[in-house]
Amino acid sequence: MVEDSFGPATEAGIGNWDIETDVFVVGFGAAGTCAAWSAATAGAEVLVAERAGAGGGAAAMSEGIIYLGGGTPVQRACGFEDSVEEMFAYMTAACGPHPDKPRIEKYCASSLEHFDWLVERGVVFDPSFCRETSMAPTGEEGLVFSGGEDAYPFNEIARPAPRGHLAKTRGSTGWLLMECLVRSAKEAGVVVETDLMVTTLIVASDGTVVGALARRYGDTVSVRARKAVVLTAGGFVFNDEMLARHCPPLLKGTFKVGTEGDDGRGIMMAQAVGAAVKNMYAGEVALPWIPPRRLIEGIIVNGRGQRFINEDTYIGRIGQAALYDHDGVAFLLVDEKAYTENWMGLKASWVCETIPELEQEIGLPEGSLETTIALYNRHATGNADPVFHKAPEFVRPLEPPVGAVNLSVGPAPYAPFTLGGLDTDLDCRVLDLSGEPIPNLFAAGRCAVGVCSFGYASGMSIGDSTMFGRIAGRVAATGT
Amino acid sequence: MVEDSFGPATEAGIGNWDIETDVFVVGFGAAGTCAAWSAATAGAEVLVAERAGAGGGAAAMSEGIIYLGGGTPVQRACGFEDSVEEMFAYMTAACGPHPDKPRIEKYCASSLEHFDWLVERGVVFDPSFCRETSMAPTGEEGLVFSGGEDAYPFNEIARPAPRGHLAKTRGSTGWLLMECLVRSAKEAGVVVETDLMVTTLIVASDGTVVGALARRYGDTVSVRARKAVVLTAGGFVFNDEMLARHCPPLLKGTFKVGTEGDDGRGIMMAQAVGAAVKNMYAGEVALPWIPPRRLIEGIIVNGRGQRFINEDTYIGRIGQAALYDHDGVAFLLVDEKAYTENWMGLKASWVCETIPELEQEIGLPEGSLETTIALYNRHATGNADPVFHKAPEFVRPLEPPVGAVNLSVGPAPYAPFTLGGLDTDLDCRVLDLSGEPIPNLFAAGRCAVGVCSFGYASGMSIGDSTMFGRIAGRVAATGT
Repeated sequence: MVEDSFGPATEAGIGNWDIETDVFVVGFGAAGTCAAWSAATAGAEVLVAERAGAGGGAAAMSEGIIYLGGGTPVQRACGFEDSVEEMFAYMTAACGPHPDKPRIEKYCASSLEHFDWLVERGVVFDPSFCRETSMAPTGEEGLVFSGGEDAYPFNEIARPAPRGHLAKTRGSTGWLLMECLVRSAKEAGVVVETDLMVTTLIVASDGTVVGALARRYGDTVSVRARKAVVLTAGGFVFNDEMLARHCPPLLKGTFKVGTEGDDGRGIMMAQAVGAAVKNMYAGEVALPWIPPRRLIEGIIVNGRGQRFINEDTYIGRIGQAALYDHDGVAFLLVDEKAYTENWMGLKASWVCETIPELEQEIGLPEGSLETTIALYNRHATGNADPVFHKAPEFVRPLEPPVGAVNLSVGPAPYAPFTLGGLDTDLDCRVLDLSGEPIPNLFAAGRCAVGVCSFGYASGMSIGDSTMFGRIAGRVAATGT
Repeated sequence: MVEDSFGPATEAGIGNWDIETDVFVVGFGAAGTCAAWSAATAGAEVLVAERAGAGGGAAAMSEGIIYLGGGTPVQRACGFEDSVEEMFAYMTAACGPHPDKPRIEKYCASSLEHFDWLVERGVVFDPSFCRETSMAPTGEEGLVFSGGEDAYPFNEIARPAPRGHLAKTRGSTGWLLMECLVRSAKEAGVVVETDLMVTTLIVASDGTVVGALARRYGDTVSVRARKAVVLTAGGFVFNDEMLARHCPPLLKGTFKVGTEGDDGRGIMMAQAVGAAVKNMYAGEVALPWIPPRRLIEGIIVNGRGQRFINEDTYIGRIGQAALYDHDGVAFLLVDEKAYTENWMGLKASWVCETIPELEQEIGLPEGSLETTIALYNRHATGNADPVFHKAPEFVRPLEPPVGAVNLSVGPAPYAPFTLGGLDTDLDCRVLDLSGEPIPNLFAAGRCAVGVCSFGYASGMSIGDSTMFGRIAGRVAATGT
């Protein structure tokens, strides 16, 4: 899949340029469309190379949630108060450990303007709220809680507000969002060449990036970028060797989120010209065990029968914890009142009259589940969960008969993508190992670091891809 | 601390070479001494640059354990059977997840020969065994269990054999080991220049490494390496920015293992010429809570009052689990029979008549500790621990009064160093992002990947540094 050398190629070695442009954007997904629009609108000649047959990237295949806040029109229409400060407080807590505060600050401060920009691009957000899911609603609602803002510990850190915004349609909305962004970029005069895979950056003798080599069917073509190259080529979840090298837990993910183009090539061709990478161990891992939220009345345990997280938090936090820290082994324990088949058909694999029987059926150590449920029930009679702080509305004693849904890797889908990538400054300039910008090289989207150091909420990837994509395109075209 | 650019510098930009040699070794610690000896013995002119005032590196400050097996004379004298196969079985289980089997295989197959080589260098191993510790014994014993070989799950995977070998002296032995290796290298004709800090690699126009720039007091000097540059410059535990970028859990470590020279410069100057890195998230974290082993009769719990590991395993596995997965919060619970002050003076911070009182004193959730101890005691009456599989000899019911030793970061020392670094082939050639060797560049020791992908046992770092250091020096000098 990844064959050619990552380079770099040198300017001196290029006989003649096959193609010339001002700003060369590599990839036409969430970040690439926005970078291209932004560069073209700023007056630059823009060429986009998309290795697939059409634009859209991972975002087009996704739920399409965009993390926005600070009091958007949709938030206000749905009766939620929010502010830049509350959003910042939530994100610094949720995106860590070691949150990138300056990047988060810029993201929060730009959020309302970015909402307006998306609306101007033709994205329609229905001013309605869906409580039941942190993914795309089955209806046309435009707003969801997408990061456990209303669950411990975040509900004690910032006033909970839903910030997951979705384009108005039914089911997954990413395709519609990307339809708007692709069209906008083209209307702005961007030239897009599909089936053109960029392989290698070209540098001048002083290290300035001056273009790239790309493969067009069997041939190699050289592209001169008079102003800049903008890498928006996606993450690396489809490159198992890179996963093994940097974040082996994601190798266990069964339902990779992205396209085959997410093979890390964009990251590595920049590393080959001296770029630094960051947070390469980090990954989002959706474990879509709800809706319905009624299941939250159950408890989730690991392979030792121990709880490890509050069940009412974001499904991606539960997936991360289960995959990274508990080897992808998890079970949801429910009683009759809590049980129902989940939205994707996950059913209880075991149902027993008593807890010891269930424990034995699952193969958990004798007494482990019994002990866990005894401690849980002891406090649940008072609607309290002092160990993991699940919200009182979901806390009541669990009563036999009991059942368990197997939420382990295999029986349940774990849907990962990578969060680490090229280190950049806040203007999306790619930084070298000393922290200095590499001249004329920019990056945004999942081939770059984003607002998430490790923790994630749905919509943050498309959120920072689109916002920092715009910045990358503008600075690439204008220098500021 | 790290100021100059990581480069690379180009051969064309070098006016005249200040120094010339065949093999230029960067760093004079465990890997550097062995690489230098090996290159010199193979007939090469060898210059070593050591940025500190004297050689020895991190190894000289360490316990000095060397992981060797397969039936060494010391193992046999102490009555332990071992084989290359058993050693390989243990290491593939203990060095993972995702163990590097070819590297481990080479390590195991070369272990007996490496033992002999060390003895020939003047290292004396006393043929005696110390059961009480997995660190350096207080006596002169030459052999310890240093990786939980005799504890679950490894005792079920391979026949347990102690493989931690130490040079004969009292207390930490690293200084003595390094005295032998430094002297051997010098006797082999190696030239060592101290206070010479290598900053930047120099490459020819075809990417071949031809030398390096170094700082000698205020000046920059150029060193031409006719045959090769061997990087043995240590890990990056003393570079907080790199830790934040690649393995933030280690930032919490309070007692960094290494020298200030372990700032990752060796890794980054190679990255600047296109080298790939691997396992950068991995770190060893010693939590020296034993000896005495009597304390193992207690149980270790996290901030939620839950056990998370078998207490009889290697202290580094417990430290890793506590720091990486439990936020550096851990408590050792003991009763009167199990309690004693530990070897470094760690005492019980709390002593209570009942478990609920102790739980409250520590600040653990109500009932959490009580529940954990109830489950533990239920099985302990039969000397069993079906949840974490601590060996029966340490398992008996805990009886009030009870006390707790605070094993959290702060009250207890967490001693980390980094395990990730430059990717190399088994001949220690540094690999680029495509997996191809970078001509004339070698690496060994903690600036390179070693036998540990993540899991660690005491002695593996000096073990692979010295063994692969020898290989790096030989191949650098002779090409094979």
